[in-house]
Amino acid sequence: MSLLVVGSVALDSVETPFDKIDDALGGSATYISLAASYFSAPVNLIGVVGSDFPKDYIKMLEQRNIDLEGLQIIEGEKTFRWGGKYHHDLNVRDTLFTELNAFENFNPIIPESLKKARYVCLGNIGPDLQIKVLEQVSDPQLVVCDTMNLWINIMKQDLLKLLKKVNVFILNDSEAKLLTEEPNLIKAAKLIRKMGPEILIIKKGEHGALLFTGDTIFSAPAYPMEIIFDPTGAGDTFAGGFIGYLHKTRDLSPKNIKRAVIYGSTMASFCVEKFSTKGIEDLSHLQILERFREFIKISSFNESD
Amino acid sequence: MSLLVVGSVALDSVETPFDKIDDALGGSATYISLAASYFSAPVNLIGVVGSDFPKDYIKMLEQRNIDLEGLQIIEGEKTFRWGGKYHHDLNVRDTLFTELNAFENFNPIIPESLKKARYVCLGNIGPDLQIKVLEQVSDPQLVVCDTMNLWINIMKQDLLKLLKKVNVFILNDSEAKLLTEEPNLIKAAKLIRKMGPEILIIKKGEHGALLFTGDTIFSAPAYPMEIIFDPTGAGDTFAGGFIGYLHKTRDLSPKNIKRAVIYGSTMASFCVEKFSTKGIEDLSHLQILERFREFIKISSFNESD
Repeated sequence: MSLLVVGSVALDSVETPFDKIDDALGGSATYISLAASYFSAPVNLIGVVGSDFPKDYIKMLEQRNIDLEGLQIIEGEKTFRWGGKYHHDLNVRDTLFTELNAFENFNPIIPESLKKARYVCLGNIGPDLQIKVLEQVSDPQLVVCDTMNLWINIMKQDLLKLLKKVNVFILNDSEAKLLTEEPNLIKAAKLIRKMGPEILIIKKGEHGALLFTGDTIFSAPAYPMEIIFDPTGAGDTFAGGFIGYLHKTRDLSPKNIKRAVIYGSTMASFCVEKFSTKGIEDLSHLQILERFREFIKISSFNESD
Repeated sequence: MSLLVVGSVALDSVETPFDKIDDALGGSATYISLAASYFSAPVNLIGVVGSDFPKDYIKMLEQRNIDLEGLQIIEGEKTFRWGGKYHHDLNVRDTLFTELNAFENFNPIIPESLKKARYVCLGNIGPDLQIKVLEQVSDPQLVVCDTMNLWINIMKQDLLKLLKKVNVFILNDSEAKLLTEEPNLIKAAKLIRKMGPEILIIKKGEHGALLFTGDTIFSAPAYPMEIIFDPTGAGDTFAGGFIGYLHKTRDLSPKNIKRAVIYGSTMASFCVEKFSTKGIEDLSHLQILERFREFIKISSFNESD
């Protein structure tokens, strides 16, 4: 049972108060696949890069058992590049440049062998492309979809069409307010679920995340981090840990979905500890389990003696 | 063993998108005392009002077993009045007016019988007045202190002097960042605890609260509320539920302090459901226990089958 991940693969140039890096590995599909790879194998990545995409990155992804059959490498094109700079308050960032390059004409093509994929994670790319992917998958059991403010602003109709076809929708709190024009997150969640997705996750950065499934509302804490080296990719990594854990456990009970949210948060906490994807390239299962247990400590208050 | 509560007693005029009310009961000491009264009796309130303070409010407070021996009623003066207006986004409010009146020359005098109080809650008033209170209490065991951005801006030196004498400091996230000039809350918490208080609570409104005690970090969820009628007093009510529960249980273990944070959050969730103090005037212990249990549901993710 395949786990299909679609999204961007990019070369990121990132500046934080701590350091600066050029042409580092980035992109939503990259972070999602890496995070999911700790739970499921293989993860099938669908994306596009140019012929300048470093072989070392290919090698690292393959070593993490990420299947790149669906990664198009366009000869003579350059890879999608994004540059951003984080402020002293890491919640604030400026985009310095966006060069679409090979991504500009991206037409996601799902290899024949993957059209029967049951778990699909639509990383943050245009909702028109996300719809194109779903049209090629015959009978998905769980479709997880991420988005961003840009698409809410410029492609809202496509996004609304897409939302009717996804099971789990992940977005952050400011995006939820933008999409619904409702400042109360609990009300906003109700409105968004009426748009289609039965399961909704609102990410709140340093404040954790809210999960809505059935009648369950779950408030997940954030991992208390004193030093965040690079917030880039944290949301994608969350989505990857989340769907990876669900794909591994095949259990969509509210209880297990809650745990998947915590595994998503666990992976995101590792992601931000290092630049680019470095924080999630080489983790042990013990490290992941230990951090999962720290989340229990942070949030439990009714433990017996 | 007395529980002493010091702070403002006010008449509030509040406008929200839902309703409008004039001269309703308000003030930090009022909310704290009411919330604490569900756990401990009597609660001893220290404050000041004018001779226009409605007898009905006195009666209601006394019916909740709040001892008003320390409430000064200044003949010929008017009661402190505050007017505020909340926006569509209830996180945003404008102060319309502040009339100090009787509060302008408030000199908190602790009655002889209360100078041996062991539990003291310093509600939000100037840190100079909070220090004056502590100078009159001979041997407090637990001093809980609240503050606001105003005092950080105009009386920072007094506040820093005060912080050396308190055990628990409660403030909100924007105040923590303001006090330390540090955008990362975990780092800010470390800096604030170095200023004196061994226990620190950072309130985050709709995102819950963070508790720091010993090596323990605890992330408390917020109660998911679709409709908030009036956010006024929520922070004070939190402090009241928190110290009331600790005063009742006499247990300062991290485990019990976590529970106190949840009881504080529980009381705050009732507070905002109605205008002014109405939401916390007439609760049953069963209602409080049931909501406490809902907090367990909202935040637990590792329950066994």
